[in-house]
Amino acid sequence: MQKYLERNTGFIASTDKYEQADKVLIGVPMDFTVSFRPGTRMGPQSIRTVSYGLEEYSFYSNKDLRDFVFYDGGNIALPFGNVEKSIDLIEKVAQKVLEDKKFAIYLGGEHLISWPLIKTYAEMFPNLVVLHFDAHADLREFYWGEANSHATVMRKVCERIGGENVYQFGIRSGDRAEFEYGKKNTHMYVNEIIEPLREVVKKIGDRPVYITIDIDVVDPAYAPGTGTPEPGGCTSKEIIEAVLLMKNLNIVGMDLVEVSPLNDPSDRTSILAAKLVREAILNY
Amino acid sequence: MQKYLERNTGFIASTDKYEQADKVLIGVPMDFTVSFRPGTRMGPQSIRTVSYGLEEYSFYSNKDLRDFVFYDGGNIALPFGNVEKSIDLIEKVAQKVLEDKKFAIYLGGEHLISWPLIKTYAEMFPNLVVLHFDAHADLREFYWGEANSHATVMRKVCERIGGENVYQFGIRSGDRAEFEYGKKNTHMYVNEIIEPLREVVKKIGDRPVYITIDIDVVDPAYAPGTGTPEPGGCTSKEIIEAVLLMKNLNIVGMDLVEVSPLNDPSDRTSILAAKLVREAILNY
Amino acid sequence: MQKYLERNTGFIASTDKYEQADKVLIGVPMDFTVSFRPGTRMGPQSIRTVSYGLEEYSFYSNKDLRDFVFYDGGNIALPFGNVEKSIDLIEKVAQKVLEDKKFAIYLGGEHLISWPLIKTYAEMFPNLVVLHFDAHADLREFYWGEANSHATVMRKVCERIGGENVYQFGIRSGDRAEFEYGKKNTHMYVNEIIEPLREVVKKIGDRPVYITIDIDVVDPAYAPGTGTPEPGGCTSKEIIEAVLLMKNLNIVGMDLVEVSPLNDPSDRTSILAAKLVREAILNY
Amino acid sequence: MQKYLERNTGFIASTDKYEQADKVLIGVPMDFTVSFRPGTRMGPQSIRTVSYGLEEYSFYSNKDLRDFVFYDGGNIALPFGNVEKSIDLIEKVAQKVLEDKKFAIYLGGEHLISWPLIKTYAEMFPNLVVLHFDAHADLREFYWGEANSHATVMRKVCERIGGENVYQFGIRSGDRAEFEYGKKNTHMYVNEIIEPLREVVKKIGDRPVYITIDIDVVDPAYAPGTGTPEPGGCTSKEIIEAVLLMKNLNIVGMDLVEVSPLNDPSDRTSILAAKLVREAILNY
Amino acid sequence: MQKYLERNTGFIASTDKYEQADKVLIGVPMDFTVSFRPGTRMGPQSIRTVSYGLEEYSFYSNKDLRDFVFYDGGNIALPFGNVEKSIDLIEKVAQKVLEDKKFAIYLGGEHLISWPLIKTYAEMFPNLVVLHFDAHADLREFYWGEANSHATVMRKVCERIGGENVYQFGIRSGDRAEFEYGKKNTHMYVNEIIEPLREVVKKIGDRPVYITIDIDVVDPAYAPGTGTPEPGGCTSKEIIEAVLLMKNLNIVGMDLVEVSPLNDPSDRTSILAAKLVREAILNY
Amino acid sequence: MQKYLERNTGFIASTDKYEQADKVLIGVPMDFTVSFRPGTRMGPQSIRTVSYGLEEYSFYSNKDLRDFVFYDGGNIALPFGNVEKSIDLIEKVAQKVLEDKKFAIYLGGEHLISWPLIKTYAEMFPNLVVLHFDAHADLREFYWGEANSHATVMRKVCERIGGENVYQFGIRSGDRAEFEYGKKNTHMYVNEIIEPLREVVKKIGDRPVYITIDIDVVDPAYAPGTGTPEPGGCTSKEIIEAVLLMKNLNIVGMDLVEVSPLNDPSDRTSILAAKLVREAILNY
Repeated sequence: MQKYLERNTGFIASTDKYEQADKVLIGVPMDFTVSFRPGTRMGPQSIRTVSYGLEEYSFYSNKDLRDFVFYDGGNIALPFGNVEKSIDLIEKVAQKVLEDKKFAIYLGGEHLISWPLIKTYAEMFPNLVVLHFDAHADLREFYWGEANSHATVMRKVCERIGGENVYQFGIRSGDRAEFEYGKKNTHMYVNEIIEPLREVVKKIGDRPVYITIDIDVVDPAYAPGTGTPEPGGCTSKEIIEAVLLMKNLNIVGMDLVEVSPLNDPSDRTSILAAKLVREAILNY
Repeated sequence: MQKYLERNTGFIASTDKYEQADKVLIGVPMDFTVSFRPGTRMGPQSIRTVSYGLEEYSFYSNKDLRDFVFYDGGNIALPFGNVEKSIDLIEKVAQKVLEDKKFAIYLGGEHLISWPLIKTYAEMFPNLVVLHFDAHADLREFYWGEANSHATVMRKVCERIGGENVYQFGIRSGDRAEFEYGKKNTHMYVNEIIEPLREVVKKIGDRPVYITIDIDVVDPAYAPGTGTPEPGGCTSKEIIEAVLLMKNLNIVGMDLVEVSPLNDPSDRTSILAAKLVREAILNY
Repeated sequence: MQKYLERNTGFIASTDKYEQADKVLIGVPMDFTVSFRPGTRMGPQSIRTVSYGLEEYSFYSNKDLRDFVFYDGGNIALPFGNVEKSIDLIEKVAQKVLEDKKFAIYLGGEHLISWPLIKTYAEMFPNLVVLHFDAHADLREFYWGEANSHATVMRKVCERIGGENVYQFGIRSGDRAEFEYGKKNTHMYVNEIIEPLREVVKKIGDRPVYITIDIDVVDPAYAPGTGTPEPGGCTSKEIIEAVLLMKNLNIVGMDLVEVSPLNDPSDRTSILAAKLVREAILNY
Repeated sequence: MQKYLERNTGFIASTDKYEQADKVLIGVPMDFTVSFRPGTRMGPQSIRTVSYGLEEYSFYSNKDLRDFVFYDGGNIALPFGNVEKSIDLIEKVAQKVLEDKKFAIYLGGEHLISWPLIKTYAEMFPNLVVLHFDAHADLREFYWGEANSHATVMRKVCERIGGENVYQFGIRSGDRAEFEYGKKNTHMYVNEIIEPLREVVKKIGDRPVYITIDIDVVDPAYAPGTGTPEPGGCTSKEIIEAVLLMKNLNIVGMDLVEVSPLNDPSDRTSILAAKLVREAILNY
Repeated sequence: MQKYLERNTGFIASTDKYEQADKVLIGVPMDFTVSFRPGTRMGPQSIRTVSYGLEEYSFYSNKDLRDFVFYDGGNIALPFGNVEKSIDLIEKVAQKVLEDKKFAIYLGGEHLISWPLIKTYAEMFPNLVVLHFDAHADLREFYWGEANSHATVMRKVCERIGGENVYQFGIRSGDRAEFEYGKKNTHMYVNEIIEPLREVVKKIGDRPVYITIDIDVVDPAYAPGTGTPEPGGCTSKEIIEAVLLMKNLNIVGMDLVEVSPLNDPSDRTSILAAKLVREAILNY
Repeated sequence: MQKYLERNTGFIASTDKYEQADKVLIGVPMDFTVSFRPGTRMGPQSIRTVSYGLEEYSFYSNKDLRDFVFYDGGNIALPFGNVEKSIDLIEKVAQKVLEDKKFAIYLGGEHLISWPLIKTYAEMFPNLVVLHFDAHADLREFYWGEANSHATVMRKVCERIGGENVYQFGIRSGDRAEFEYGKKNTHMYVNEIIEPLREVVKKIGDRPVYITIDIDVVDPAYAPGTGTPEPGGCTSKEIIEAVLLMKNLNIVGMDLVEVSPLNDPSDRTSILAAKLVREAILNY
């Protein structure tokens, strides 16, 4: 029977066997603390669905997904509306991934998911560098009175691993205090990506790197499907180039967040995200 | 200058003066615990915006909003993603409304907002009756491990005020245990509204009544803009009739929840909600 | 060459020859005075486009469009934003239609187009009866200071031909003064269509009849593509039945207005309108 | 690891084991011969996705999907644009299903898929009765010169099994010749469903029954997501009632076709379809 | 009570007190003369709504809206469909603004609103320079027979203040006669913005400047929400840069027109417009 | 009568007389073999509809459509779902066009339509050069087992006319085998357009040229309305420039394919296509 049927149950070319895979995809459909337009919980599933419109082969990398064994684990089963329990669960999953010695790409969901992820990775890799691509600085101390928020996530990361280990690219929105904090504490490249990234890549050497990409770093012309679109961003060509530029780094983890498919009837945001995931699987 | 300008800052025909109003509208844009499609946080603002397409006069009631003084207070400023603090805040607002002796209509937001509201009203009115219109029983004890959820709200209400004081209309979805709980503990009218409501209205007498309407009691043909559409519901004519049937009751509070405008590009869900709000202001 | 090609240039099964046709379709894409959501200017073209999804044969009437010779004249070329010149132009077109002894169905555009049309028909047919299907009474004297408006059109008609010759069906929205005017001056059937229509049809005899249908008489569940949706209306079955009920009257003209396709991505409003047009061509 | 994750790979509550299941769901994503708006190929996946917004328990049937073992096989892998090969493949799948003695529900895709299905079932069950719910008669001999078409499917069925074994409900569109063919050869109930179905159910006894439901039998207010919407149809309540009315028949196969999710941003068409599938699994 | 509530009644960070403000925002929701797709009447309200997704602080300008006192006056109450009265009203409002010595930013609405505005400003500032950003030359003498049209507005401006005082940027569409008129009479920079603007800014010195931006100067990839999208335009980065380039000029008035939110479900057009408004408030 | 009416029956400024025209537009609404999202059958009609929002005059070319006599023949009447017959029909139409010595622009539909077109042109022009603009190489030998597919079309072309006569621009997606085939057999410019095109144009001289443009060569930010969007493409400015760069070649035929309007509510894809068609009519 099965020979007649296709069951697209994960990202294109993914395997069903966790054990055999050395790379894994994990959806983290949390969108509880977003302030403007919710909906990123549908991001991971949308990225999987549209991945079937892509080729497994990438001319950018001259590699083919079918030559890799990676597992798409579906989504973490999060308790709706419970931020603290969700953060705990995400942490547990990341610990298991690291314990099992897999390379994981986490698909958001909102940006707050990067907090439990980076915290866990930093415990395992004390010398961790974080490369952060985003329209927003996300360096607030509190947002609407909450310390756990998509707008505070990088502040929490800085406080944990030291701002000097955080590189921020493409930032073009934030409170005055965030920009001041960034200038003092992190490496913040305002409204720029490719040029500074070339330099940073050279500097990092073989330190362990965690990449967090908020899709809104891309201009909403290219990525309208996101919760807080911020005109004035980069093109799809540039973000693809950025992902490829990092391929020789010692990347230990990565997330791609804030894809919100409801706001993009053309699905091009999810398709761009799927393309970035493909390149990451092929190269990281 | 002002004579040339119009500033539509609230529901049609609302006043700016809280003190002078005996009725108030309050938006409660919480959508943190929803399981399927978020977006009800935009409900209150959408209902206000489309209200300008309605007449102030209603032929159903032969009354005109311009003959009433009611205040539209905007939305409660809720902390994104923090369910407990949000519940506290909603309670505080309801207490203040009651203290100030106003009649309030609360606009959701998700159905969980009814929990702090009804709890507060039940303290003030020990003999409270709750009339609940919904496609879903909302009688779960836990939902995805959470006691505070849009799917547990009526269970919490029953446990607080006694299921015998809860009347449920239009229910057509729920777990087996919910239907069993309902049959034993509440007055649950499955898939029916108008006929049982006529009887219930006669029975209630002058007891204080709180009305909670989940817009998904209406069929998604008439109200597609909601988070969990459930085919097989009532028509727009029937829900208007239901609201009018209750006009001689001693109504002390009311909420209208789960309007999610993103899922309805025609805005007819918000317009229907605005019409129900108009009739409630005119008659309750 | 032409044998390979199809050029859908008008309503399904329409001819290209004005002279040979005894029935004509004319689009009147005016939407300048609408107050809520513009877009009815796209109505006539949308109705033509979707007509190709319908059958030429109607089982309701047991007749086939291909057995009729009717002409689709396209749209009147109206000066954008100039209400007075537009009204003049519409009048001229109606006069020519009557002079040429054609039966015309006019497709709106907004409801104000019925004013120059009915005025012209009333000159030709002094004993004219108007049957008006609408959610809104349209009996205002002025609307935002304007006498020429989609909200005043039936008042102007009444003042011209006498309210006693105007029958209004399905009305469920209006100012108090409009309902009072209607009760005193017209035959207004509030929120009812089929039952009173049966009676009215019997009474009218062979007097000349002009039919004006505002698509918003239908509930927005069935016809969301309109400028001022008004929940609580009739079903698609009922409006089809209404159109068929009038088939033995002496119908001299007809318009169908307020279809606004932008607000209905499913196109079912235009399809319903096309179906009513088909039945009107087959039966009037 | 798996304990933290959920992978929604099929219809809600479906199992992964074909062998253990006595009922199966199979998607047939063919939309090559449609004339108006393509897109039904996305139907099966959309029905699966939205099924997670439904309860496993149905109060209509007082049964729970979790008490059944059914398999969701995904979609048949069809060659794009090749109608003949697709028909062959569908036939092969149906033969295998029958050989394995499973009860199958096939999800379209366009209506032409019913031709290879019913042909196969008729070979196995010589006494087969077909119950056909549709807005369109689908009794053409040719459509645009093609004998294999979504508009000829029931004609081909009649020619194979005899029109006297075909019952058609809700038909309201077709060519004159189709209605004449229907009147002479099939049991065609024009624009009616529930009343004649009650009678037919009594008459059929324990003959083997194949049910084919084109979702456009429902009015586009309730099911806008379809390729050829036809105003004037039944409500969601009525189609649910129809599915339940047949529960005591000897149903040997069923398909549900023409769900086209692109035309319905509210997803209520897919949700209605999922609900019908749930009731069919619970009762057939 | 008010401490719990937020009422977003105007642009983010605007005050309620006209008298205390030195800058004002005024919506001019006229869309009566547009030829292609109406809907700009919803522009001002949409820009206000999405402004809450922006930061009050701008890193571009290193300034914060909360350090400014500006008033959002809502929309001018225009008579629907009456172009002449609307033009009069707009003129009266502009006169009052100038009399009260406020700096105003007017939000369209269609481009014709710039005619009464610039006429009024030219009376007050005889030496006025107009900087015009647009895809379309808007230099027709008549459009569909009308002198008052969104397609004639800059011609009327030229005739009033002299084409030599009009600078046009980004023009890429128009009739042959418009380009010829432009070449002879205005400073028209075809398909170019930033380079010529740098030069023009130097030349203007401290002459009073009125800026009129038609959002369709931006490519529809970045600003799809407009009535007459014209592919081949500038990016969002470029229009932001253009607005900042003018900050040292003696700007006495500004309008931003042709935002039509219905055509952009992602809202990025309104968000870009809101960002330009923010920079204008901070810098002009 | 006709003086009052406008009937937009073809592309803006097209004539009704085939015989008098030396250029023709022909729609080819085939979308049967597409793999991801169908809907290009609506492409030709959408391009015609939006063409009325463009100017007849182009400043790029300093020419006016009204100075040309070209015919819009509507669409080829294709048998739905029958790929072979459709290919035959397209061939017949192309033969007739060549016989009648017209220059034709064919509007897709899917890319497979280029196969019968180029085959026919290659018979007439043995020295034919094909310039191919596309995101996808379309060089597969089979796709899902089918040799006739939108993914095999350029392979079939190469096999017929020799890959050395095929120039491919903008390619950024394909299987590894396709890139290898392209490198060996065609002139494939990966991810580049303007620079190589300048060189190719010089080399071609006066050889007969057939141009095939798949709109997805443009980035989905600029052209979201297509079946297989591929982020990382060119801008609208670049594709316009490319079309203009070829104006001095000996162009004998052209197609523009894969516009799928359903996926682009802003219509900017169709408008861009219409602009390219305008420039092609003016210059080829």
